[in-house]
Amino acid sequence: MIKARVTVTLKNGVLDPQGKAIEGALGALGFDGVNQIRQGKVFDLTLDGTDKAAAEESLKAMCEKLLANTVIENYAISIA
Amino acid sequence: MIKARVTVTLKNGVLDPQGKAIEGALGALGFDGVNQIRQGKVFDLTLDGTDKAAAEESLKAMCEKLLANTVIENYAISIA
Repeated sequence: MIKARVTVTLKNGVLDPQGKAIEGALGALGFDGVNQIRQGKVFDLTLDGTDKAAAEESLKAMCEKLLANTVIENYAISIA
Repeated sequence: MIKARVTVTLKNGVLDPQGKAIEGALGALGFDGVNQIRQGKVFDLTLDGTDKAAAEESLKAMCEKLLANTVIENYAISIA
């Protein structure tokens, strides 16, 4: 069994209103000095098998097809 | 300036319908062998200052107050 983590983040230049809202909320709570927040998604997956290279290929395909919108998002795969 | 990443994930035992839906969708797309998916959130922050210990304290407080629901979520802070 292979455990993997996929992190999907917005590309630079893509507006992130959710991040802006969190920035505003942190300011309202008295946290100063927070300049930029961008929110992304993280997926923790468990895959059958033990072949890490095959798992990485498979995860890339999953990202391209479903997990990330590659027009506006980047993804990073890390296999434990 | 300090760059930090906060990862918020559901605690074990907390149901994750969104993860289940993704699992179903991956199955429908022909990706077999994916056993468990859990979705979480990731926040990339930029903080003023250079004191990493102070930044970590501040980030912990942000997580407790706003970024994570500590009843059902765990958080991890990593400072670059």
